[in-house]
Amino acid sequence: MTGTAPDVGRLVVSCTDRPGIVACVSSFLYRRGANIVQSDQYSTGPVGGRFFLRVVFRLPGLDKELPRLEREFREEVTVRLGADFRFRAASAPTRVALFVSRYDHCLLDLLWRARRGELPIEVCQVVSNHPDLAGEVAAFGVPFEHVPVTRATKPEAERRQLDLLRGRVDLLVLARYMQVLSGGFLDRIGVPVINIHHSFLPAFAGAGPYERAKERGVKLIGASAHYATEELDEGPIIEQDVVRVSHRASVRELTRRGADIERTVLARAVAWHCEDRVLVNGRTTIVF
Amino acid sequence: MTGTAPDVGRLVVSCTDRPGIVACVSSFLYRRGANIVQSDQYSTGPVGGRFFLRVVFRLPGLDKELPRLEREFREEVTVRLGADFRFRAASAPTRVALFVSRYDHCLLDLLWRARRGELPIEVCQVVSNHPDLAGEVAAFGVPFEHVPVTRATKPEAERRQLDLLRGRVDLLVLARYMQVLSGGFLDRIGVPVINIHHSFLPAFAGAGPYERAKERGVKLIGASAHYATEELDEGPIIEQDVVRVSHRASVRELTRRGADIERTVLARAVAWHCEDRVLVNGRTTIVF
Amino acid sequence: MTGTAPDVGRLVVSCTDRPGIVACVSSFLYRRGANIVQSDQYSTGPVGGRFFLRVVFRLPGLDKELPRLEREFREEVTVRLGADFRFRAASAPTRVALFVSRYDHCLLDLLWRARRGELPIEVCQVVSNHPDLAGEVAAFGVPFEHVPVTRATKPEAERRQLDLLRGRVDLLVLARYMQVLSGGFLDRIGVPVINIHHSFLPAFAGAGPYERAKERGVKLIGASAHYATEELDEGPIIEQDVVRVSHRASVRELTRRGADIERTVLARAVAWHCEDRVLVNGRTTIVF
Amino acid sequence: MTGTAPDVGRLVVSCTDRPGIVACVSSFLYRRGANIVQSDQYSTGPVGGRFFLRVVFRLPGLDKELPRLEREFREEVTVRLGADFRFRAASAPTRVALFVSRYDHCLLDLLWRARRGELPIEVCQVVSNHPDLAGEVAAFGVPFEHVPVTRATKPEAERRQLDLLRGRVDLLVLARYMQVLSGGFLDRIGVPVINIHHSFLPAFAGAGPYERAKERGVKLIGASAHYATEELDEGPIIEQDVVRVSHRASVRELTRRGADIERTVLARAVAWHCEDRVLVNGRTTIVF
Repeated sequence: MTGTAPDVGRLVVSCTDRPGIVACVSSFLYRRGANIVQSDQYSTGPVGGRFFLRVVFRLPGLDKELPRLEREFREEVTVRLGADFRFRAASAPTRVALFVSRYDHCLLDLLWRARRGELPIEVCQVVSNHPDLAGEVAAFGVPFEHVPVTRATKPEAERRQLDLLRGRVDLLVLARYMQVLSGGFLDRIGVPVINIHHSFLPAFAGAGPYERAKERGVKLIGASAHYATEELDEGPIIEQDVVRVSHRASVRELTRRGADIERTVLARAVAWHCEDRVLVNGRTTIVF
Repeated sequence: MTGTAPDVGRLVVSCTDRPGIVACVSSFLYRRGANIVQSDQYSTGPVGGRFFLRVVFRLPGLDKELPRLEREFREEVTVRLGADFRFRAASAPTRVALFVSRYDHCLLDLLWRARRGELPIEVCQVVSNHPDLAGEVAAFGVPFEHVPVTRATKPEAERRQLDLLRGRVDLLVLARYMQVLSGGFLDRIGVPVINIHHSFLPAFAGAGPYERAKERGVKLIGASAHYATEELDEGPIIEQDVVRVSHRASVRELTRRGADIERTVLARAVAWHCEDRVLVNGRTTIVF
Repeated sequence: MTGTAPDVGRLVVSCTDRPGIVACVSSFLYRRGANIVQSDQYSTGPVGGRFFLRVVFRLPGLDKELPRLEREFREEVTVRLGADFRFRAASAPTRVALFVSRYDHCLLDLLWRARRGELPIEVCQVVSNHPDLAGEVAAFGVPFEHVPVTRATKPEAERRQLDLLRGRVDLLVLARYMQVLSGGFLDRIGVPVINIHHSFLPAFAGAGPYERAKERGVKLIGASAHYATEELDEGPIIEQDVVRVSHRASVRELTRRGADIERTVLARAVAWHCEDRVLVNGRTTIVF
Repeated sequence: MTGTAPDVGRLVVSCTDRPGIVACVSSFLYRRGANIVQSDQYSTGPVGGRFFLRVVFRLPGLDKELPRLEREFREEVTVRLGADFRFRAASAPTRVALFVSRYDHCLLDLLWRARRGELPIEVCQVVSNHPDLAGEVAAFGVPFEHVPVTRATKPEAERRQLDLLRGRVDLLVLARYMQVLSGGFLDRIGVPVINIHHSFLPAFAGAGPYERAKERGVKLIGASAHYATEELDEGPIIEQDVVRVSHRASVRELTRRGADIERTVLARAVAWHCEDRVLVNGRTTIVF
């Protein structure tokens, strides 16, 4: 985020739970002069459960120290705890690609928030299966690529998308991209993929959620941001929210009102992901 | 509701939509000296759709006038519009039976709201398949009947329940009653049945919604009040609400937090039903 | 709103409450072939109170019929009821001017909603006391005027603003305009003025609401859209909403999170005003 | 809370912020065989700010170990950090007195929740300036004392209240107690006092908040739980929530709807306080 101090770092750890992890990690940081600013932890169970930790710390000269921190953490701590871990400078923006079809609300909302420094991201590329939003995206100074997708051309289109993004991004966000990505694409992209679905999952997974919400007569409609997996709308949920609706709302009005929830939920999910707040635990997430 | 003026009446009408319904109904009331206090209407479509109307009016001496109003409305208006309609004095409480198992929160909340005059109901009978809550109910001066239910005794138990309630109630509320009522029971009971389900339907219909919410990692849990039909958890939804939860909440904590939503949602649904605000339209409801 | 049928009209009436108003108005419309689509009413008291009515109706050839409707309504109904009233074609957009300073979120949100046909408005002019947002506004094809304001030049600046808008707009929206408009300006502008204040009024009226929210340690921050009056932040409230915050949020983060509430609340207030849903009743509003 | 494992303890620490606090505390616990289950921290500023820490840990045989833990923590840690701290067994219930006037909703809600094991409290005494709720309270097996208060008898009444509670309670909760407690009483009671105010403070502090909400035409009403201080309605806020209302709601209906928010907000505040989640920081609170 704009204004994040250059000496703020984040450490994320996950490992099998056992006594002494916090003491071990906090001592490691203290001995190197790092001051813990925030710390969150969660365990799925004290015996044999999985332990998750996110630490925010200040360390003067962080940029230069990071490689050494990582090496020493691996040597001193990982060896004992068998932990997965990740260090990151809070000032380093996440490089993001956005996929979109024709609805502009999620795309514009992310571009606005990025421009005003509200999200710790750098949008590197927008890809769409329609040309409609090229002008909008150009106004933000972000490259736009039109990659049409038909049933026949989908494999080739996905190859082109992969070529465009390879090594350039840390995160792919599907900002109302109305095509299903293949399992092969998700394997090869090599970075997390966040999708926004326009219902409060697991209700109305799949196509036409607002139509089905109208038919069922629900009194709340919602949106869910989740990590995309090969099983459609089944990936770990990051964030959800809802808004109250009445019998008066047509499908068209549900779609409009839902759009406000979609963009808010997606923006929160992207922010939290990029601040290393979201840790995947099987089919679910821990959000610190 | 305590304090409802004795001269306030309600009229609910539904019919095929056509021009002039409001003019016809409002002129009918005006000519009899009734002053319209509130009026809500909804149409599923201007041509061939279904029209729904709820009117609240004041008419001095309402109690004596009601039979004449009904007869004349049938003769003058129904003949022209082919409408279903219902007149009711707002001061007439709805006679309610409550079915409950072991969880007390919905039961106590309704009994307490009824006692303080917050709901326009008179609770005539509580029936439970467990004896646990007999003392609680007695403290409110309401008859309690323990009707045990096993797979083998269910038909007999339902006969006993029907005998208890026949002609004595206008509404049956399932306040966390953990038995499924048979289609035959629902047919014979002859009054609307409101159920509270502990999820935001259609998500987690059926058994164990909090367990399944935990497994799926949703970020909101909810409750839904709906009219009971033979298809479990598929009846028209009256009201829903949700509360935010995090990964930290165990199933036990979800159950606790959900209880607060359940009792609130059920109390709203019962209040709205008894104020003639809820009109069924196929699988959905109109809530004025 | 885009897609509003050309034959839909709205009628808003307010008068002293008395029996027969609904019958009188609905008969008037029925005799002219108008079909009532929606009707809302409210009375501050049955005896001597003020009665408010909003009717949406369909009438083929509405555009041509409106002048005649108005004339006849005045002659036939107003004479009897002593009512204020206003007819309007739902398809006629409200002409809007936006005043803004440096914060762009409310401005962009309204421009974007107007472009996608979500608000029944036509933005005719943007005026700012800073030049910063000229490029943004130009991208929407809307005229932008930079009118600097200092303590010394304020009278002249207000004259220039009035010259710009005179006769061209039906509504002025202060979309985070950080200057106080004089009573003289509000008198002369001759159209309603909607302001967005960044707190849940009456809490934190005046300057620096987020700073004061932080100091007081509130657990919710909010925004309020209200009609501007000469008394700062005291005008009738149209809409409010809040969002939960914790002790962790700095003033900067409160400002960011609040921005999402501000733009949502302002967009709702503008939509409702332009759909003739908001009726002023002394210091308060009725929102149908 | 019912079911809390007997070996779970909590440690709350506050001190001037400086590097190494987390390392110091976590090492102290680790060396004594305690496993950290949850840890939350907050600092008002890295340099010269105030640091707050809440740690939940498991330690076999906690009950016997607590006195030694406290002594050693004082000797080893407090000496170095100059910290305030408090150890507590999570299984030890907080002893609570409830003060109430005539409204029963907050009182009953706390008694219900305590009875079903939802709150980690033991209600030792109810005191009221009216006799009305004696029967209700008796049904829960809790002592009820009627202490009338008039302007003239207030000093004597407060003495009697102090005599009743002295040494018997850890927390006093004002569950809609409509008398102002004197500064002298608050000094002498010697335990924290939580009050529920029926508005979203700082809006409508003082008397008649629902009346004033109606006059001002707000679109949300709320409730605030806060620590009572000598300055009325100015103490540190623990929790707040709101509910949407419309112009239709009378003061009576605002009062009813507000009651649901009041009891929910108060129950949350009491739960959090008794779980040692609430730390006072000047005029504000930190809620972990």
